[in-house]
Amino acid sequence: MKVKTLLDLFIHDLSDVYSAEKQITRALPKMIRAASEPKLKEAFQHHLEETQGQIERLDQLVEAHEEVRIVRMKCHALEGLSEEAQELIEATEPGPVRDAGLIGAAQKVEHYEIATYGTLIALAIKLQLGEASSLLKETLDEEKNTDHKLTSIAERQ
Amino acid sequence: MKVKTLLDLFIHDLSDVYSAEKQITRALPKMIRAASEPKLKEAFQHHLEETQGQIERLDQLVEAHEEVRIVRMKCHALEGLSEEAQELIEATEPGPVRDAGLIGAAQKVEHYEIATYGTLIALAIKLQLGEASSLLKETLDEEKNTDHKLTSIAERQ
Repeated sequence: MKVKTLLDLFIHDLSDVYSAEKQITRALPKMIRAASEPKLKEAFQHHLEETQGQIERLDQLVEAHEEVRIVRMKCHALEGLSEEAQELIEATEPGPVRDAGLIGAAQKVEHYEIATYGTLIALAIKLQLGEASSLLKETLDEEKNTDHKLTSIAERQ
Repeated sequence: MKVKTLLDLFIHDLSDVYSAEKQITRALPKMIRAASEPKLKEAFQHHLEETQGQIERLDQLVEAHEEVRIVRMKCHALEGLSEEAQELIEATEPGPVRDAGLIGAAQKVEHYEIATYGTLIALAIKLQLGEASSLLKETLDEEKNTDHKLTSIAERQ
């Protein structure tokens, strides 16, 4: 897509994160199966449900603002991040080392989303898309919480 | 590489970020050329010099710890992130919309690094690699500063 205005950029980034969230719903079940520590499995499971809610929130956002839409695109960064997580699973055996690697891989994904939602909120504010910015903030808070939760699981290991 | 121990995982992640930093030194000159706002060009230029220093710091870390090495690998996440930045440049004309997009792209890279260095520091502490953890902390602080600086440039636009 051609990106000429800030609204185009918002639509571009929103579509990118929509693709990212969809890819995450496909990656997380593999990470749940690969993890050993029950608390980690549980955190991934919880985040899978949260991610499904975040996708619904993106749909809600599009419904709330007539000028906003989601275009079909593939988030290349998430492709790379998923590839890394997959390679890590293949390079390790089940156990604490793999779990530590899975936490790192998941935190990279969280930070990708933290950066993306941060940019989207800044754009939504500039574009005066009030409903969008509050929906996006809810998701940003969830991503930050997941990141913190993963850090505390890592520290307890 | 097979990842069996926490030290292997540390070497794996260190090698990944080494590849990421190298890719960043190739991506930033393109971003400097593509940006319009002088403050943004300057921030990218500064970060390019900082990145070169961060690579040197990784070499220093390897010299400081006999058991640590860097293996040849390609950071797929950075490949994806660079691809996204390149596509954004192609989708936009020079000016404020492209600049806003470049800031977003750069912040995604910063957050990738913040997550990676965060994991590396946690592993270095567990492995009692004192010199490594202080070198990595210096870099983490620089990445966080760059992220904040980019946020304030975005806000002023």
